[in-house]
Amino acid sequence: MSASAPSLRLGIPKGSLQETTQKLFAHAGYNLRISGRSYYPTIDDAEVQCILIRPQEMARYVAQGVLDCAITGLDWILENDVHVEQLADLKAPWPNYGVVRWVMASKEDSPYNSVKDLEGRRIATEAVGMTKRFLAQHGVNALVEFSWGATEVKPPVLAVAIAEATETGSTLRANRLRVIDTLMESNTQLVANARAIADPWKREKIETIALLLKAAIEAQGRVGLMLNVKRDDLDRVIAQLPALQRPTVSALSDPDWVAVNTIIEERTVRVLIPKLKAAGGQGIVEYPLNKIVL
Amino acid sequence: MSASAPSLRLGIPKGSLQETTQKLFAHAGYNLRISGRSYYPTIDDAEVQCILIRPQEMARYVAQGVLDCAITGLDWILENDVHVEQLADLKAPWPNYGVVRWVMASKEDSPYNSVKDLEGRRIATEAVGMTKRFLAQHGVNALVEFSWGATEVKPPVLAVAIAEATETGSTLRANRLRVIDTLMESNTQLVANARAIADPWKREKIETIALLLKAAIEAQGRVGLMLNVKRDDLDRVIAQLPALQRPTVSALSDPDWVAVNTIIEERTVRVLIPKLKAAGGQGIVEYPLNKIVL
Amino acid sequence: MSASAPSLRLGIPKGSLQETTQKLFAHAGYNLRISGRSYYPTIDDAEVQCILIRPQEMARYVAQGVLDCAITGLDWILENDVHVEQLADLKAPWPNYGVVRWVMASKEDSPYNSVKDLEGRRIATEAVGMTKRFLAQHGVNALVEFSWGATEVKPPVLAVAIAEATETGSTLRANRLRVIDTLMESNTQLVANARAIADPWKREKIETIALLLKAAIEAQGRVGLMLNVKRDDLDRVIAQLPALQRPTVSALSDPDWVAVNTIIEERTVRVLIPKLKAAGGQGIVEYPLNKIVL
Amino acid sequence: MSASAPSLRLGIPKGSLQETTQKLFAHAGYNLRISGRSYYPTIDDAEVQCILIRPQEMARYVAQGVLDCAITGLDWILENDVHVEQLADLKAPWPNYGVVRWVMASKEDSPYNSVKDLEGRRIATEAVGMTKRFLAQHGVNALVEFSWGATEVKPPVLAVAIAEATETGSTLRANRLRVIDTLMESNTQLVANARAIADPWKREKIETIALLLKAAIEAQGRVGLMLNVKRDDLDRVIAQLPALQRPTVSALSDPDWVAVNTIIEERTVRVLIPKLKAAGGQGIVEYPLNKIVL
Amino acid sequence: MSASAPSLRLGIPKGSLQETTQKLFAHAGYNLRISGRSYYPTIDDAEVQCILIRPQEMARYVAQGVLDCAITGLDWILENDVHVEQLADLKAPWPNYGVVRWVMASKEDSPYNSVKDLEGRRIATEAVGMTKRFLAQHGVNALVEFSWGATEVKPPVLAVAIAEATETGSTLRANRLRVIDTLMESNTQLVANARAIADPWKREKIETIALLLKAAIEAQGRVGLMLNVKRDDLDRVIAQLPALQRPTVSALSDPDWVAVNTIIEERTVRVLIPKLKAAGGQGIVEYPLNKIVL
Amino acid sequence: MSASAPSLRLGIPKGSLQETTQKLFAHAGYNLRISGRSYYPTIDDAEVQCILIRPQEMARYVAQGVLDCAITGLDWILENDVHVEQLADLKAPWPNYGVVRWVMASKEDSPYNSVKDLEGRRIATEAVGMTKRFLAQHGVNALVEFSWGATEVKPPVLAVAIAEATETGSTLRANRLRVIDTLMESNTQLVANARAIADPWKREKIETIALLLKAAIEAQGRVGLMLNVKRDDLDRVIAQLPALQRPTVSALSDPDWVAVNTIIEERTVRVLIPKLKAAGGQGIVEYPLNKIVL
Repeated sequence: MSASAPSLRLGIPKGSLQETTQKLFAHAGYNLRISGRSYYPTIDDAEVQCILIRPQEMARYVAQGVLDCAITGLDWILENDVHVEQLADLKAPWPNYGVVRWVMASKEDSPYNSVKDLEGRRIATEAVGMTKRFLAQHGVNALVEFSWGATEVKPPVLAVAIAEATETGSTLRANRLRVIDTLMESNTQLVANARAIADPWKREKIETIALLLKAAIEAQGRVGLMLNVKRDDLDRVIAQLPALQRPTVSALSDPDWVAVNTIIEERTVRVLIPKLKAAGGQGIVEYPLNKIVL
Repeated sequence: MSASAPSLRLGIPKGSLQETTQKLFAHAGYNLRISGRSYYPTIDDAEVQCILIRPQEMARYVAQGVLDCAITGLDWILENDVHVEQLADLKAPWPNYGVVRWVMASKEDSPYNSVKDLEGRRIATEAVGMTKRFLAQHGVNALVEFSWGATEVKPPVLAVAIAEATETGSTLRANRLRVIDTLMESNTQLVANARAIADPWKREKIETIALLLKAAIEAQGRVGLMLNVKRDDLDRVIAQLPALQRPTVSALSDPDWVAVNTIIEERTVRVLIPKLKAAGGQGIVEYPLNKIVL
Repeated sequence: MSASAPSLRLGIPKGSLQETTQKLFAHAGYNLRISGRSYYPTIDDAEVQCILIRPQEMARYVAQGVLDCAITGLDWILENDVHVEQLADLKAPWPNYGVVRWVMASKEDSPYNSVKDLEGRRIATEAVGMTKRFLAQHGVNALVEFSWGATEVKPPVLAVAIAEATETGSTLRANRLRVIDTLMESNTQLVANARAIADPWKREKIETIALLLKAAIEAQGRVGLMLNVKRDDLDRVIAQLPALQRPTVSALSDPDWVAVNTIIEERTVRVLIPKLKAAGGQGIVEYPLNKIVL
Repeated sequence: MSASAPSLRLGIPKGSLQETTQKLFAHAGYNLRISGRSYYPTIDDAEVQCILIRPQEMARYVAQGVLDCAITGLDWILENDVHVEQLADLKAPWPNYGVVRWVMASKEDSPYNSVKDLEGRRIATEAVGMTKRFLAQHGVNALVEFSWGATEVKPPVLAVAIAEATETGSTLRANRLRVIDTLMESNTQLVANARAIADPWKREKIETIALLLKAAIEAQGRVGLMLNVKRDDLDRVIAQLPALQRPTVSALSDPDWVAVNTIIEERTVRVLIPKLKAAGGQGIVEYPLNKIVL
Repeated sequence: MSASAPSLRLGIPKGSLQETTQKLFAHAGYNLRISGRSYYPTIDDAEVQCILIRPQEMARYVAQGVLDCAITGLDWILENDVHVEQLADLKAPWPNYGVVRWVMASKEDSPYNSVKDLEGRRIATEAVGMTKRFLAQHGVNALVEFSWGATEVKPPVLAVAIAEATETGSTLRANRLRVIDTLMESNTQLVANARAIADPWKREKIETIALLLKAAIEAQGRVGLMLNVKRDDLDRVIAQLPALQRPTVSALSDPDWVAVNTIIEERTVRVLIPKLKAAGGQGIVEYPLNKIVL
Repeated sequence: MSASAPSLRLGIPKGSLQETTQKLFAHAGYNLRISGRSYYPTIDDAEVQCILIRPQEMARYVAQGVLDCAITGLDWILENDVHVEQLADLKAPWPNYGVVRWVMASKEDSPYNSVKDLEGRRIATEAVGMTKRFLAQHGVNALVEFSWGATEVKPPVLAVAIAEATETGSTLRANRLRVIDTLMESNTQLVANARAIADPWKREKIETIALLLKAAIEAQGRVGLMLNVKRDDLDRVIAQLPALQRPTVSALSDPDWVAVNTIIEERTVRVLIPKLKAAGGQGIVEYPLNKIVL
């Protein structure tokens, strides 16, 4: 790449976040292709260079300036203990893009009921730094050992407690572990290097990516709704709709009727449709959306 | 679950109907999750409890009141010979949600041409009750044996005829079987227990489910159509559209033109688009729908 | 099929084009089903008979009149050296429906830099006819051998050069091959037999298929965009939109606002949305399309 | 098949026993091929005709004489309540060829502790006949309902207890079920029709199959062992070997040494090899076997 | 590779023969590794260079001397119409290493009953040269068209007859084709270039490969058999054994008994074991073999 | 487990070594079953308790006495920098049981040619401790960063060099990396805790496991060979056999002939068989082995 062509270096998370990240960029209008063997995904924006990196290492490379911006979890930002700018919270109703809780957990039948009880004990975790800081805040001294995986099966033989991320708690339950305390809540973020943000070209580039990623996520939980209403019923129908969004009202070929078009949260559909029908709505049609910028 | 929180017990069919049922609920706006090992699917409505049951047994459990409502085929309702309320016919253009015919069939080269010819013969079927009643209606005595599967390969060695469900007839043809008579036609239904329907809270709950499932099925065969038309051509264009649905007519920034928006059956698109174009339609756009409540 | 029922014989390409062809027909509104074993796909139009044939042989059968129309690549039309009518260029942003280049290539470190250097050498290719004609145009005599596949691995042991199709050039690079010259560019076409086109019934049938296939392809690169705008901002917003398509402008329940609805190319979305927002657009919603007839 | 060519009709069990049955015949020296779609497996013995049948129905067809012999479980012989000749017990260390126990089970926290407690209750099972007879033997009246599968998830909602087959008990434990009583133990058998056994040609044919199947199973748990021993140590070494099998003792090129060759049970290898080495064995070699006829 | 290190260039067939070829070399004691992307398989003999080539092209490259030796089918040797030395017939009881017949076939209900009836007709085949020579031998003129695959589905629409390879005839039957005549029988061969054979180093190298490949194939159909016999029964037992192979007779620790060890064809086992048992054989043990050089 | 039943705690490596470890135990005569979800594999020795642990952590747990013995790589023993007893070298011709080299590598076109050149640079590795010690031995100061995986793609962007394990070097080549230096060679080991070895019961238990694992590995590279020889040719034939193993010489029924039986290294077979044949060997048979204790 010549010095004259500016370029943005973007970190794409390898592993459990990878597939959803690719899907998120597709919804945002980017064609991000990850070929099986390469660690340099291609994207259909010649000014962006992607690199595939494990989320655990991402914040370190953004802080060092090796990357301009990246997608990673809040947990690994804190574990790396470095400074990065958080540009967009990317919580989304897709696999691995939801909220995870990092918890301290021990066997259901163990005598450990609070973090204080772990004084002098052995704790296994993939997040050694975060766990040590948490214990220090509670004034607890314990041996924190790095776990190369399968942390949840370590108690009681290989450790008395673990610090581990959990989404639904089902893995903890399956291993008969009990939550003692919560270290933090985390979800996926778009982060950037401070010097990159200070560069106007890079800042605008990153903000456009942030806008489109958020627009794609916003659209996930929403749908479009069109219905036909008699003019006389219009006020009753509109009263049912959530206030925050102005509905479109259009003429129909029959002058006594109008068409109403609006965007609503998908989870309200099952309550709203019966009400709209009762209020006189007819030909109620729900249609899908790609992006929303509120 | 405490006594104070009302709850609806819903039977989800295990087996060939399972995947489409899950998809149908997704289209209807419910997140029905069936995990590999559990027989208790989760659904994002805290007032509904799901249980995975084979369609063959479903009607029995609805009739006994173990379930409030359930999805199963009309065939297995009749085979169980019990009373349940049929709330919605869920015929849909999806795998296993179409119409099946239960037929009496024998080998192509067999001497059995009508149900009368089966007097005293051995018949294999998964629906012993339904087959016995059908034979009785025709005054025929035969030995009806329960078949644990692969019924279509039993003639001529293991039975002289079979009573079996068929969708396209291709399995019958592949086994060189000839249809002698038809016992019934069946497709998937939403059924409920009579006492559940008598309870107003349960009735409303079940009817909302029925409304949304049907709205999702309705949307399957339909699409939205938008096109721009000169005001002078509007009548000619509208004359092409099916009468049953009022089209929306909206202004464009150019006052000589209007936009027409309507919902049509997808199978008419290939006939309609050439006609609309010939009548002066421009910028004809077809878009997908999620749900329709007519 | 009786003589009185007219019927159109349509060739569907077997192999790499097959899956996308099936998807293209689905987008165009046809249900084209290819069962694993049969070479006679079914389609939900009783007047069309499909047959699955390798694209290499397709043009030959269309020219002979065995088929009325077919989908195949321009390259294999030329290789067969026969006359067929080209009715629609089906270039689409889908796997194997993009543009391929047929190139003459040799090893990176070979001494062959132009087609002239191949005089008297051995060349491997799947398109023997096209390659021989190309060499003849350049006045070169060479031994052109038919390759049964994996042509790109033949140099330098089994041939000094190859004539081969390439989409991105990555297979050539992976085999350290260098392009010497370009024979042609090709992509998928809808072609017909001249006598079939002369038959009015067949012509209309084929043209409807062509119209719907192209409408499905047009919709691929485009999306719908709706936004709310203050009447005062309307001109500024409309000035941002591409000129070629008239946007719909509809009233909202709040008389100071209007709704704008338009179709744009998807690749412009990421530039347009920030501009529309800056110009006063609110509630910007992007939605998907099925078909467009411009 | 003409009347002059005698033929044996052999039932092959479809379903969970199928794969191991095929493997067992391969070990016995038969090439039994089951093609995906056909219910008539081929075998490389022109005098044997195979047919694929569910084990649940097998004994019925053997008893009726439709089949001469077949492979099925003892449980389904009893459930069918028919008379067949048991020719070989085919218990083998292969998937689904081990021993299963049919047990009466209820929820861990249920009040049902013996079969007597089930008086008047509802019991789900795939083996209705066997369960009814078992209850009758204990003087218990209960409602026994046929279960179409997934029986183990039925308590407590759909039944209070179940009668079900279990191999390791892990499915019962996973569903928090407790065993109340045992109905029977079962494993795979070679069975024959009494009239077929009375026919000398069929009897010899069936007995050869029985001999070879058992020879293949015998070989599973055994291995060959060869070792070199000084003549002086021979008695000590032979004293370590199990008495039942005479070892071969051969000369070596060095006259002070002999080679010992014997067949032992594989599970004793890990105990025997250290002992043989301690007793002076050298060059101890274990080798695999295909068949053993003791 | 330097000029001083002699090397043998060996062609490995790509496609349907590939997997079995790899297995055959493994049985012969070579580790032939074919990595997914490379056309240069590695082998654990530094003096052999492998190259992966379609069997259709193999004989051409051996005849040209590009390869020293190769594995390919007799059919493609003849189709290429070139001279190669046939060193070993590799017929083996493994997938695609059996005998195939090239037949002329037409639709079951077609009027073509002999090759004479094809005068002036269109015939599709992958082996154009072989088919033309066969027709010429019968004095028949016909249009032979190259088929790119799926030849068996071409009649009656795309050709009146085909020349095609068949192993069991099942594909012909599935397509309702009837055999008119047979062109040839073919199976896999080890072939070499005449000049390579004239080079003593290459000749010995190729002959070792031939010896080991054949030894591996010989072992496929045979097994070892050991049994204990009373000295008095020895003659009766040996009389049962096939004459061609001398059995080993060894002493047992009990002087009245001897051990007999022999190699027999596996398909005779099921006849032989009952006879050996009847003749006094005890502890009959069958064991597997890797290679046999008779 | 009660205090009176002694038990051995054995660590089984999770991950790339897992499948081969399971296969190795099977060859050694143990049935080690690893079910998909459990970290406690079962083994058919009631006195052994298995636990599945990542090889990286194994030596730490053996040194701490949490495990009595375990299978892990020499590399991770050194990385953990703890004391464990090495009981058996388990190098085997199976996937991931061969020798790996840990190397320092940098980009092919980088200026780093020796470990000295890395002074002050950033190095990525999964083995931080081992790498730091290696650099210290060479008097080099560098920033060694822990890599969570895909280390080989880090140069040049994310690190200037890496310390990484390589088996064939192909991953290094594919990433255009050049080896600068070698840190160590490693392969799989059976290791034990020193206190466990001091316990006679545990010591014998571990040594039996070591003996059987090694016997299974020894058998991998060897085969049995039997041949018939005329007494006159015996000396010539025996002269061809490797000295280290005494062949068995047995009488045949024909007194002029003897049978020779021996064990040889499989990789010598392709040289030996032609020689044995030339020396007069007949009926040469190679057969497989399970275990060898030399």
